Amino acid sequence: ASSSATNPSVRVVLQQCMGAQLMVQPATEGSEPQFVEIRRGVIVYICFLKGATKTLAEKMAKLALTVRLSESDDGKLVSVIDLPGDVLIIPQATLGGTVKGKVMQYHKNIAKDEGLQLYSEFVSVFRKTIEKNEKCATAGCVVRHGTYGNRQVFSCQTNGPYTHLIEL
Amino acid sequence: ASSSATNPSVRVVLQQCMGAQLMVQPATEGSEPQFVEIRRGVIVYICFLKGATKTLAEKMAKLALTVRLSESDDGKLVSVIDLPGDVLIIPQATLGGTVKGKVMQYHKNIAKDEGLQLYSEFVSVFRKTIEKNEKCATAGCVVRHGTYGNRQVFSCQTNGPYTHLIEL
Repeated sequence: ASSSATNPSVRVVLQQCMGAQLMVQPATEGSEPQFVEIRRGVIVYICFLKGATKTLAEKMAKLALTVRLSESDDGKLVSVIDLPGDVLIIPQATLGGTVKGKVMQYHKNIAKDEGLQLYSEFVSVFRKTIEKNEKCATAGCVVRHGTYGNRQVFSCQTNGPYTHLIEL
Repeated sequence: ASSSATNPSVRVVLQQCMGAQLMVQPATEGSEPQFVEIRRGVIVYICFLKGATKTLAEKMAKLALTVRLSESDDGKLVSVIDLPGDVLIIPQATLGGTVKGKVMQYHKNIAKDEGLQLYSEFVSVFRKTIEKNEKCATAGCVVRHGTYGNRQVFSCQTNGPYTHLIEL
């Protein structure tokens, strides 16, 4: 795992938060917009590029769950599982962009149908891991995620986002 | 400019926001914490790695100011200058991390004194550009920034963060 793989196919940006909210369903005539939210935990922005596979998607999910980037109450860095904390996964195709002059191009991004499949598998690893972990279950930790392809209307509160980039 | 330079020395993550707040001075005995805030505009997370130079810092600042990633009222993508919008610059050394097992290592980050110097120059380009731009001045646009080396206690509200990575 490197944070500057030469030709990455899975890219995540991780941020620590004390709380975050994401709109998963815009308002329609007669219905309010719908939001999901998390408490303390990690925000995972995920982008799949050409060459991404189910294996790499799962590997990245496991890495995001186990890398020690969350600050525990006694100031130690622990994984989000050991915190234990919530997870908010946000599909973020824009992360695949490359600057060309004054615009971004997205030629390296994976096709939308493939990306959707990988995204579902990626989310699934988080759900299964958090649900079967006793500490997380006892603490009532949740995994929430955005709708693939939607605009990610989003807000967050952090005690320091401690932003990290990981590429595979 | 590439978003996956083989050995990048300047890395930014850009997010669009409708508003953002950053603590620049923690509370001390007898004084409240101090915050800066911006309205609609762009959040610029900046990290300098080994090999970063003043030239590259200035180039990245100009790129962040001119790349068309801000959504105007009529739905077009324009630069933050043309929006016109505010800028919040957040030093984020953690962006230089590389995964090693379950921890992040920061061997590639620039030395702190050099980073501070480049950070000052980086911020300066934003200030000068926004201040001398008539459209920005008329709209009362501001450049705000975090304190280098501090914890970046932060919150934001977005209409879609539209997260981008740019490396030089």
